[in-house]
Amino acid sequence: MSKNASEQAVRLLARIERHEPQIQAFSSYDPARLRQDAQTVSDGVLSGLGVGVKDIIDTVHYPTMYGSPIYSGHHTVNDAACVAQLKAAGALCLGKTVTTEFAFFQAGPTVNPHDFSRTPGGSSSGSAAAVAAGMIDIGLASQTAASLTRPASYCGVVGFKPSYGRYAAAGIKGLAPSFDTLGTITIDVATAALADSILKGPLPASVSLKPTTPVRIGICQTPWWDQAEPSTRIALHNAATLLQKHVSVEEVDLSTFVTAADLHVTIMSYEACQALAWEYAERKSLLSPQITKLLDAGRDITYDVYRAALVDAEKLRAGIAEIFKQYDVLLAPAAPGEAPRLEDGTGSPIFSRLWTLLRIPTVTLPGFVGLNGLPVGLQLLGAFGADEALLNFAAWVETVFPFRPVPVICR
Amino acid sequence: MSKNASEQAVRLLARIERHEPQIQAFSSYDPARLRQDAQTVSDGVLSGLGVGVKDIIDTVHYPTMYGSPIYSGHHTVNDAACVAQLKAAGALCLGKTVTTEFAFFQAGPTVNPHDFSRTPGGSSSGSAAAVAAGMIDIGLASQTAASLTRPASYCGVVGFKPSYGRYAAAGIKGLAPSFDTLGTITIDVATAALADSILKGPLPASVSLKPTTPVRIGICQTPWWDQAEPSTRIALHNAATLLQKHVSVEEVDLSTFVTAADLHVTIMSYEACQALAWEYAERKSLLSPQITKLLDAGRDITYDVYRAALVDAEKLRAGIAEIFKQYDVLLAPAAPGEAPRLEDGTGSPIFSRLWTLLRIPTVTLPGFVGLNGLPVGLQLLGAFGADEALLNFAAWVETVFPFRPVPVICR
Repeated sequence: MSKNASEQAVRLLARIERHEPQIQAFSSYDPARLRQDAQTVSDGVLSGLGVGVKDIIDTVHYPTMYGSPIYSGHHTVNDAACVAQLKAAGALCLGKTVTTEFAFFQAGPTVNPHDFSRTPGGSSSGSAAAVAAGMIDIGLASQTAASLTRPASYCGVVGFKPSYGRYAAAGIKGLAPSFDTLGTITIDVATAALADSILKGPLPASVSLKPTTPVRIGICQTPWWDQAEPSTRIALHNAATLLQKHVSVEEVDLSTFVTAADLHVTIMSYEACQALAWEYAERKSLLSPQITKLLDAGRDITYDVYRAALVDAEKLRAGIAEIFKQYDVLLAPAAPGEAPRLEDGTGSPIFSRLWTLLRIPTVTLPGFVGLNGLPVGLQLLGAFGADEALLNFAAWVETVFPFRPVPVICR
Repeated sequence: MSKNASEQAVRLLARIERHEPQIQAFSSYDPARLRQDAQTVSDGVLSGLGVGVKDIIDTVHYPTMYGSPIYSGHHTVNDAACVAQLKAAGALCLGKTVTTEFAFFQAGPTVNPHDFSRTPGGSSSGSAAAVAAGMIDIGLASQTAASLTRPASYCGVVGFKPSYGRYAAAGIKGLAPSFDTLGTITIDVATAALADSILKGPLPASVSLKPTTPVRIGICQTPWWDQAEPSTRIALHNAATLLQKHVSVEEVDLSTFVTAADLHVTIMSYEACQALAWEYAERKSLLSPQITKLLDAGRDITYDVYRAALVDAEKLRAGIAEIFKQYDVLLAPAAPGEAPRLEDGTGSPIFSRLWTLLRIPTVTLPGFVGLNGLPVGLQLLGAFGADEALLNFAAWVETVFPFRPVPVICR
């Protein structure tokens, strides 16, 4: 087994050494540490797979800096639960991947492997870029607004945000606990399902991904369709055309969910100000203007307004459960369009706020190419708790979509 | 302001120096640090109040050891959000209070201030004992099963576990995230309400505790009444007799909630095994037999069984919401009886598993004395999210109950 892991370490290190100087997906990695870990790695379901750990997740052997100068050089004494689970299943931890500051908007140095002048998206910037460049097999990622879906779409890879609470949050820096969700970025649905079998609980589960054709797919332009660029509009149209050759496809009207975006902002601002109370009180001068603005906004929200938003969010969750009685899966935009230029930020989260608020699982699938030749993904949504079913549907949809991701710079 | 805080520091230090050698409520405190903090403490709503921080909660200036030898001497670089919030409001942090191992059952050295041969209860052992002995004003505490309610009852003090999610969990070691809830232990409801005004969110709120007479109180013997000892049975009977002089009091049948105890154990075991994945994988030899047994049990639960338990728990939550349409508050046992002897452990959590599963707020009120002359508390329960109303009702009930807590050893 350690022979296998050692070979894997050599293979991935070669890719990192070749591509990392340009991509800058890692906040830290250590070839010596990696070769040493490869000698002692466990045998298991994930043997031979390399993991990149988003740098809001604690690790013993690499610094954990949350994308913030407040935590420059910071080390924890333990691994987050998810890292321990993956290691115990045989995965090799390659290092930490770049996050935006506290998984919010202030970008790190990572560029998009498809176009170095473009953002990889945020906040799971490094995990998405490293998977796209073939430097890791599993990128640990997280989402509070659109931090997993958007970089997966921009980098042309698969993003899986499971149902809220499915993976352990222990050892992960939180931003807004009503939404914070750990997930994965991978090259395909099969690898996401493999990681899911380990991360979903203590029992080492057998993997049983069964690509499944859904009976009814609902297409959601969403109430924010006017913010979709031509690349995303064309992708959703083409996807619907391809899918309706096989299954029933209908437009779903989500106009009653239009309040979701504002509710999401209210809850996130309030909770972020609570969660980052120490940083705000004791290290404010080291916070970026972007996150300071979020926290200041949180302070202007009263408890009663916040509480009312939580109640309204629950009502929307009941509403989407009704819609999933009619559709096996929903298909929706993953981002407004192709990756923006670096100077324009990490992109708009508008097409994920609703789904994050609803806490339902989502698989972002690559499969389309935009007007500038860059990847455009779409997201498949499932009912809360129906994660296995969603992965099975996604594995089938993956075979229908035209473009299959391969590690970018290889081509 | 710093004069006030300095005087307060001197007063509390004198009490700690007098009582701590016997009570052993603190896992760490530092008189020099305390005097220094008193010089720089903020002015605010909590000025002049001393806080003890349960040692599953991160603090910069004191070690954070989670009651486990794995983390002996462990320091974090930041304060948990709740600690930062209390400090920013003027509270003085006196040190860390003893927790059982990872807030489960393996007891620390703390004794019950009312009888040194008895347990203070667990897991918030130190916070409850320190409040009872007048060494702190606010004890930060937490509950995953009965870890706040039970020590409050055993030590004759007020315990407030708010609605799930009301206080920030950032920087607190988790055990079972579906249940883990931060709360407070205090000498009275007014102090709990004061702390609540700060902990519930970023906005410094004005405190407006208004003792309120409820119209209808439901008395809950609960499905576990056969495990109630005479001391608790008499206390509940006497409380009902006292209350019905003022308000409508009715027995509530909770027999349809009998599954809650098993559901709670299933969910807690599964999630604990996920949350403590690193300790289980990498430091198993340093775990106590008690927590090892819990984690081993978690590994025997499949995801499907766990998921079904989550769905059943949601149904029970909907069921209790119906009951709160008929009653303003419920009154129920807080523990089987008086504090057990030290050699018999930290007591049974049976009378809190239901309420923790339901995620509703609870105020444990002292007020009764058991057959051995030790405190017996009862808990008042409110509807989810109705925390202010519950505190207001509790402030009135507090005036009706016969026994008022005073710092124990003073008397």
